[in-house]
Amino acid sequence: MAYSGRPILAEELLFKPEHSLIDQSLHSRLGATTTNGDGFGIGWYGEGEEPALFKGVDPAWNDRNLREISGQVRTGMFFAHIRASTGTAVQRSNCHPFRHGRWLWMHNGMVAGFHELRRDLVMAVDPDLFPDIEGTTDSELLFFLALTFGLEQDPIPAVERAVGLVEDVAARHGVPHPVQMTVATTDGVGMWAFRYASSGQARSLYFSTRVDKLAALHPEVEVLHELGTEARFIVSEPLRDLSGAWNEVPESSCGFVRPGEAELLPFRPLLAAA
Amino acid sequence: MAYSGRPILAEELLFKPEHSLIDQSLHSRLGATTTNGDGFGIGWYGEGEEPALFKGVDPAWNDRNLREISGQVRTGMFFAHIRASTGTAVQRSNCHPFRHGRWLWMHNGMVAGFHELRRDLVMAVDPDLFPDIEGTTDSELLFFLALTFGLEQDPIPAVERAVGLVEDVAARHGVPHPVQMTVATTDGVGMWAFRYASSGQARSLYFSTRVDKLAALHPEVEVLHELGTEARFIVSEPLRDLSGAWNEVPESSCGFVRPGEAELLPFRPLLAAA
Amino acid sequence: MAYSGRPILAEELLFKPEHSLIDQSLHSRLGATTTNGDGFGIGWYGEGEEPALFKGVDPAWNDRNLREISGQVRTGMFFAHIRASTGTAVQRSNCHPFRHGRWLWMHNGMVAGFHELRRDLVMAVDPDLFPDIEGTTDSELLFFLALTFGLEQDPIPAVERAVGLVEDVAARHGVPHPVQMTVATTDGVGMWAFRYASSGQARSLYFSTRVDKLAALHPEVEVLHELGTEARFIVSEPLRDLSGAWNEVPESSCGFVRPGEAELLPFRPLLAAA
Amino acid sequence: MAYSGRPILAEELLFKPEHSLIDQSLHSRLGATTTNGDGFGIGWYGEGEEPALFKGVDPAWNDRNLREISGQVRTGMFFAHIRASTGTAVQRSNCHPFRHGRWLWMHNGMVAGFHELRRDLVMAVDPDLFPDIEGTTDSELLFFLALTFGLEQDPIPAVERAVGLVEDVAARHGVPHPVQMTVATTDGVGMWAFRYASSGQARSLYFSTRVDKLAALHPEVEVLHELGTEARFIVSEPLRDLSGAWNEVPESSCGFVRPGEAELLPFRPLLAAA
Repeated sequence: MAYSGRPILAEELLFKPEHSLIDQSLHSRLGATTTNGDGFGIGWYGEGEEPALFKGVDPAWNDRNLREISGQVRTGMFFAHIRASTGTAVQRSNCHPFRHGRWLWMHNGMVAGFHELRRDLVMAVDPDLFPDIEGTTDSELLFFLALTFGLEQDPIPAVERAVGLVEDVAARHGVPHPVQMTVATTDGVGMWAFRYASSGQARSLYFSTRVDKLAALHPEVEVLHELGTEARFIVSEPLRDLSGAWNEVPESSCGFVRPGEAELLPFRPLLAAA
Repeated sequence: MAYSGRPILAEELLFKPEHSLIDQSLHSRLGATTTNGDGFGIGWYGEGEEPALFKGVDPAWNDRNLREISGQVRTGMFFAHIRASTGTAVQRSNCHPFRHGRWLWMHNGMVAGFHELRRDLVMAVDPDLFPDIEGTTDSELLFFLALTFGLEQDPIPAVERAVGLVEDVAARHGVPHPVQMTVATTDGVGMWAFRYASSGQARSLYFSTRVDKLAALHPEVEVLHELGTEARFIVSEPLRDLSGAWNEVPESSCGFVRPGEAELLPFRPLLAAA
Repeated sequence: MAYSGRPILAEELLFKPEHSLIDQSLHSRLGATTTNGDGFGIGWYGEGEEPALFKGVDPAWNDRNLREISGQVRTGMFFAHIRASTGTAVQRSNCHPFRHGRWLWMHNGMVAGFHELRRDLVMAVDPDLFPDIEGTTDSELLFFLALTFGLEQDPIPAVERAVGLVEDVAARHGVPHPVQMTVATTDGVGMWAFRYASSGQARSLYFSTRVDKLAALHPEVEVLHELGTEARFIVSEPLRDLSGAWNEVPESSCGFVRPGEAELLPFRPLLAAA
Repeated sequence: MAYSGRPILAEELLFKPEHSLIDQSLHSRLGATTTNGDGFGIGWYGEGEEPALFKGVDPAWNDRNLREISGQVRTGMFFAHIRASTGTAVQRSNCHPFRHGRWLWMHNGMVAGFHELRRDLVMAVDPDLFPDIEGTTDSELLFFLALTFGLEQDPIPAVERAVGLVEDVAARHGVPHPVQMTVATTDGVGMWAFRYASSGQARSLYFSTRVDKLAALHPEVEVLHELGTEARFIVSEPLRDLSGAWNEVPESSCGFVRPGEAELLPFRPLLAAA
């Protein structure tokens, strides 16, 4: 779940909504795995230059510290992730969001055949960036490939090139349909969300309708008046069953949100020139 | 799950069967909660006088050490438990099995209104036993009440008195139907399993058919020939869908197993004389 | 370590000072045990009515989340504790500070013979408070005894009665010199620190000199100008070797700090009338 | 600590000796860091083809499961390690011993400038072995370089080449004296221990005198009669202050032990031909 808007307490986002992210740990209706208990993480922008991270390997619903911290963190840009491991170790360094400088990154999905492709993908990471890789996941590696291709300067082409590279390496190893992803990334100001799968059948991803439109549709729902007109959510699963609230991000698309701006753009992997 | 029989590697019991206990962590079909990820524990008799325990709060399917240890523990009496907390803290000291001397104890269910009843129940524990209480669960307290009433000398009446006491204290506090339990306990030689609920609707509990009878019914199933005729299982959920393999322990009953012996007896809470 | 004063980032208090609390985990010069690696905890007043807690059983120097959170928590009343277990389990529910309503409590020391005294002490806790006990330490029990005797209304007599009770119970069990303690407690506005041992030889406890006096003594030390004149520290070990900065709290004393107020008072255990 | 000899309970090795490895966690007299609380691990040969591992990030002295398992593991080849991180994450995948097939490996020391050298070292690992790397330590990478150079066929030259490669890569990056190491490795039958530092000043490493000679020297020490004549220890710090019991492995040497055999050989890094 990613939230952008007026500063709000994290616990409003994690524990309050009808089908909050914490509830998703237990019963994920649209996710690929029924239970997401292999770790959680939150990232937000507060004091200091870089965003802060609170991540752990305990199931989210059990972590007392998560509840405590959620009641104390007030922020206008908030990322939260529940992990279901696709093979790599369950350890804090493999939990999302990942951070580099001012950027946060989280990913649902996998790189198929990662065991075979990993070495070639690792070698494609910029040598100056390589030492900053802390874990062993495909998700973090995708992040570092995107950074290698200039995520910090121009995110969408950077991610297109990263995915293009993975597909190219996979083709050379004979691994079909390697990329399954929904990704959210931010620099603290803007937020980008990607939905793409090499097979054309990506996992679910939704963005929220403008809050003022929704408040007009549902005047009885109080929280809509508290949220502020700039509030935007990007989620794997809808937070609340409210008609008109959630809009699917189409396959092979990227949504971009910044205060006052929101747009949907096509996403097409690019293969860098040989 | 409780196993009694010829020495066998724990990993055969935990990871091999069709619907093994480890799989039960994720998809418990008959349990009260869909996911049991609040801890696990195994207990077994090997070197030394007392049984050994390996318990932890990580979800069982994630614990690498559990897999490693399972491949090394060979034992003829084996207890395994997956926990779904009913309110008390998720910490190793609240994981089952609990141990006292040569005895192991595990419990599925709860004492309703435990928050209100706890002080009175704690005070009913033998003062000499009280210092050995390590955690804060209703399950461990039931164990210590049973020990107080002579579990080590005559298990069935001891548990009947323990349950009788809980029901009496609950009545005085106005808490209806306090006890929901399936319990397994052992001294390393014999194994007792109880199924009882104050409301008359207890959780599921099964014991296995004699292995030689089952091997005759299903000659094609190899593991039955490896298990040995003395093999007995007591489980919350059947380990394998095999017709004729599993028999329900009736409501308000206690099953007792010892090499060469197996019987079902009625279970009736006793209120100790005032 | 307890801090009261102008709001400050927790990381300034935990990680910056010369001999910060985090360093104390590794090399405690004045503490009873050389290494304090059995857990840590911080408590502070921020959003909401009750103070927030962040506690864990990893050694403080290893906990990445502690570093992250410290950089985000800005508060005017801050408690931090490093634990060295005196026997009870290492688990989050046994880490300090403990909380009840708006009150925080932390304790260095032990109740000797706790194994023998525990039952009687538990029974002396107000039955309405008893259900809130989450762990199994002597420290938390002392807190609940103080609450039983009215900590929230009048702290010093309440703690005097709690200690008096422990000494009385110990005498009846033949346990000499039961209480070894330095305690810090707060309601978010005022801060009380106690130094007492039944044997007359309590662990170390210091309070800081008024910052304006100290800045006059040491004009070259920059942080003193940033701290603000109301800043007060109460610590087990001095945070910084600076002459004139630290004053010993005498044996059998209680220090009290509130904005604009600071005093030292005698502390004498009281035995409640039979 | 490495033990080779007659099968023995792990708890005899970990918890019994005067200055056991568990005590070393707290007060390491000869180690580079005073406290080794960043994880522990044991490896041993029992059931099955491959050795078993029990590793964790809790300080060794706190891990209840370690105590329990130690009382149940009986083995003739036993490795135990206490970790003090030199920078990489504290997580189970970074704890020693590391395993590959039948081989175990543990390392005290570091590769200086690892952050700079890591990418080149990673690329030098055999592509077929690379996917098996689970963590991010220099220690594990040294192991995989040794495997790349044929550890499983001829250990000493393989380690010489691995170290040679590291020194060569370090020279090209301008990092002086890169390798600081004591290493123990085994295939379950033989045990090799290496002591080497690029600077010529390696950490401590000792091997034990033949037990029968020692029993003659110290007839009053009972455990010597229980140990069996084939017992051999290789340790970072002496387990027991007993004159004549411990012999320093010289700088730039490798000790090799197999039932009936023990020898000291020189160790010289080899640079593979260009």
